[in-house]
Amino acid sequence: MKTIALITDFGLDDIYVGVMKGIMRGICPDAEFIDITHAIAPQSVREGALALLHSYHYFAPETLFLVIVDPGVGSTRRPIAVKAGQYTFVAPDNGILSYTLTELKQINEAIVLDNPKYHLQNASDTFHGRDVFAPAAAHIARANMGFSELGSPVTDLFMLPRPQFQMRDHYIRGEVVHVDHFGNIITSIGKLKRIDTHRILLEPLLSAEAIIIPAENVTIKLHGETVYGISRAYYEGARGSLMSQIDSNGYLEIAVNQGSAAARLDAVVGDIVEIEWQEETEE
Amino acid sequence: MKTIALITDFGLDDIYVGVMKGIMRGICPDAEFIDITHAIAPQSVREGALALLHSYHYFAPETLFLVIVDPGVGSTRRPIAVKAGQYTFVAPDNGILSYTLTELKQINEAIVLDNPKYHLQNASDTFHGRDVFAPAAAHIARANMGFSELGSPVTDLFMLPRPQFQMRDHYIRGEVVHVDHFGNIITSIGKLKRIDTHRILLEPLLSAEAIIIPAENVTIKLHGETVYGISRAYYEGARGSLMSQIDSNGYLEIAVNQGSAAARLDAVVGDIVEIEWQEETEE
Amino acid sequence: MKTIALITDFGLDDIYVGVMKGIMRGICPDAEFIDITHAIAPQSVREGALALLHSYHYFAPETLFLVIVDPGVGSTRRPIAVKAGQYTFVAPDNGILSYTLTELKQINEAIVLDNPKYHLQNASDTFHGRDVFAPAAAHIARANMGFSELGSPVTDLFMLPRPQFQMRDHYIRGEVVHVDHFGNIITSIGKLKRIDTHRILLEPLLSAEAIIIPAENVTIKLHGETVYGISRAYYEGARGSLMSQIDSNGYLEIAVNQGSAAARLDAVVGDIVEIEWQEETEE
Repeated sequence: MKTIALITDFGLDDIYVGVMKGIMRGICPDAEFIDITHAIAPQSVREGALALLHSYHYFAPETLFLVIVDPGVGSTRRPIAVKAGQYTFVAPDNGILSYTLTELKQINEAIVLDNPKYHLQNASDTFHGRDVFAPAAAHIARANMGFSELGSPVTDLFMLPRPQFQMRDHYIRGEVVHVDHFGNIITSIGKLKRIDTHRILLEPLLSAEAIIIPAENVTIKLHGETVYGISRAYYEGARGSLMSQIDSNGYLEIAVNQGSAAARLDAVVGDIVEIEWQEETEE
Repeated sequence: MKTIALITDFGLDDIYVGVMKGIMRGICPDAEFIDITHAIAPQSVREGALALLHSYHYFAPETLFLVIVDPGVGSTRRPIAVKAGQYTFVAPDNGILSYTLTELKQINEAIVLDNPKYHLQNASDTFHGRDVFAPAAAHIARANMGFSELGSPVTDLFMLPRPQFQMRDHYIRGEVVHVDHFGNIITSIGKLKRIDTHRILLEPLLSAEAIIIPAENVTIKLHGETVYGISRAYYEGARGSLMSQIDSNGYLEIAVNQGSAAARLDAVVGDIVEIEWQEETEE
Repeated sequence: MKTIALITDFGLDDIYVGVMKGIMRGICPDAEFIDITHAIAPQSVREGALALLHSYHYFAPETLFLVIVDPGVGSTRRPIAVKAGQYTFVAPDNGILSYTLTELKQINEAIVLDNPKYHLQNASDTFHGRDVFAPAAAHIARANMGFSELGSPVTDLFMLPRPQFQMRDHYIRGEVVHVDHFGNIITSIGKLKRIDTHRILLEPLLSAEAIIIPAENVTIKLHGETVYGISRAYYEGARGSLMSQIDSNGYLEIAVNQGSAAARLDAVVGDIVEIEWQEETEE
C-alpha cells in the first residue's frame, strides 16, 4: 500500500478530486488516499503552503503529497516533483512547497514534469490536476519510478514570502494566517512553547534568538479588541469569553470558548495582530 | 485490514482530520478509514452520541470507532477506550458513548488512556484528537494491543441525559434532535414501526410498554404548524407539502417532499414536538 | 481490492454515506471507496447524470459505480444494476445512468434488484441507499455475483432528456448545467476542441455534423452580460475579468480569473446561454 495525501483548493462539491483519485487508482492500484484538506481558499497558494507545513511531518516516511492550488494553470508555471526528507511532493512550482522545503532543509531531487508520456493524452489547459499532476503522482507511487524518466532536473524553485512577523523590544507584529472550522483565529506569531504558568518561549522560525514572553502580563490586540494573557486551553476561559492560547502547531491563536472568535471579531486572513508586554521586574 | 470509523466535530475544511489519519496510518499501516461524519455541530456532545447510536450497528464486528466531540479538551475530562459488543470505542469521557453503551448493555472492558507512552510526545493542550486519541486508536487497531498496556481500568463512565421524551394518554412530547442535509427534521419520538396502513407501533427505548398510535388520525405540532397523519414515504406527499414519516432509524421525522422542512418551519435542534391522537373507536 | 465509486446527493454532514460504506465493507471486506461527489443538488437527477458522464471514463475497468439521487425513494421506481462497457452501475431507474449508457452504446446486462434476500432486513421506505443499493453493490463487488441471483432482467430503462442545445446558422443556444466550487459556470455547449488560435471545433454529442467556431470573433451572452472570444486558460484574462474557455470536459465555460463568475452574473443551473458569430471572411 502506498499513501498519497492530498491538499487542494478544489472543494468536495465537484467531481474534480474523485476523478483524480480514479486516475491514480487506475495507474497505481494499491494507492491509498488521505485527504488533508480540499478547502484551501480558492487560489490561495500561501494557505496551501501553511496547510502542508503543519501536516506533512505527522505522516509516515514514503508518503507522497499531491498539493494543488494553481492559479497559473495553463500558463508557463512549471509542474514539479520534489524528493526531500523521506517524502515526495508533486505540485505546481508557485511556492506552495516552499515553507516545507525550507523546514526540511535539503532537497534530494527536483524535476519539472515535462515528459508528456506521463501526462494524460490531450491534456487540457484548465485542469492539470487531472491531466498532469495526478498521473505523475501515481506513476511515482506505483513503481517508485526514477525521477529522470518523468522530467528534467530543476534547481531554481519559486519561493513564497513568509507571513508577516516583526519583533522589536516587548512588541511583536504578526498577521492572521487562517481561520479554522471552529472560528479560531490562527496567527503568524510563533513558534511558542509554554515553559510554566508564567513564561512562554518564543522561537521565531527564521530570525535571530529565542525570547521569553510573560504568559499573563501580555496584551494582544486584533481589530480594536484586546485580550489579556495567554491561557493554557479553551476550558480556562468562561463560556463565550474571548481568550488567546498556543494553537496545536505552536502559533498564537485567538479563540472563544465554545464560540467563534472570527465571527465575534469579524477577522479575516491578513488582519494585523499585535502583542505587547512590560519589562518583567525581577522578584 | 482494520476499519477505523470516525465521528468528530472537526469539519473537513481544516487539516485536523487528515493529520489524525496520517498518524494512524503511520502506526497501523493497514488501517482503513470510514468517515461517518465530521460535521457534528461544534461541541455538541449529544449530537455526536446520536450519530454513533444510529450508525455503529451497520458496521462489521471488530470495527474501531474514534468519536471526538471534546469541549473539555485540556481539562480533567478523561480520554477513554471501551470494548462493548464486538466493537471498540475511543473517545473523551463526556457521555458521547453513553447512548450506544446503554444499547449494547454490557461493557467488556474500559480504560482511561493514561499511559503517556502511547501519546504523541509533547502533547498539546488543545488537540487531543491528534496527540492522544488517534495514537491510542491506532495502537489498539494495529496489534489488538491489550487495554492494560494503554491505561488504567475505569468504571464510572459519564452518562449523558436522554433527549426529551414524555408520554401520557394519547399525547407525546419530544424534541428536535437533528436537522439533516435535506432539511428533514428528526425528533426524539421513537422507536416507531409501521404495523399496517392504520397502525404504528411505538416502543420507547427506556420507558415502560409499547403502545399503538394511529397512522392517520394523529396530529403533529411543531413551531405552530400542524401535520396530520404519518405517511409511508416522501413520494406520498405532493411536491412541496409538509408531511411526517418514520425516518430510517425509526424516529418521527417532519419533511417536505423535495424541499426543506427545516427552512419552512425555521426549526432547530431543541425545538419541542408534540403529537396527539383520539381514542380509537373499535369497529 | 475492489473500487466502489460513489455519487449521491446525501451530503457529507449526516451519517448516511458513512453508514452505506460500513454496510458495504461488512459484506465486501476488500472494498475501497472513492467519493466522486455527495454534493449533487438535492433530488437533481440530471446533475447526477452529468457528474457520472464526466467522471466514469477516468476510472479503471471493473470499477463499480453506486449512483444515488432518488426523489422517488419508496415509490414504484425500480432499483437497478447495469453492466456496460467494462463497468458496473447500481442506481435507481430514474435516468441517472442514461447519459453514460448512451455514451457506452451497449448494455451487457441489466436487472431490477428485486431479490429481497440481498436487501437489508426490514428495509425502510426512506433510505434505500442503505437498505437496497449498498448491499446489492457490495454483493456484486465481493463475489462478482451473477446478476441473475440478484434480480430479474429489465430492458425498458428510463431515459432522461438531454440538456438544452439548439444550433442554427452562426448561433447556438444552450443552458447552464452546473456551477462549480470556484464559481465557474459550465454550459451544455460542446463538445469543443481547440484546433488553433483562431478556430474551435464543435462536435455536438447527438446531432448532425461538426462545425468550426471562430475562437476570437464570437459573442457569448448570459444574463445580459456579454463575453467576447473563447480564451485558452484562466491566466489569459486579467485578474477579475469575465472570460470564457473550454472546460476540462470539453464544454463552454464562463469564468472570472481568480474570482467567481456565478456570483458576478448571479447565474444558476437552467439559465440560457447564447453564442453567436459572423461568417468568416476567407483571407
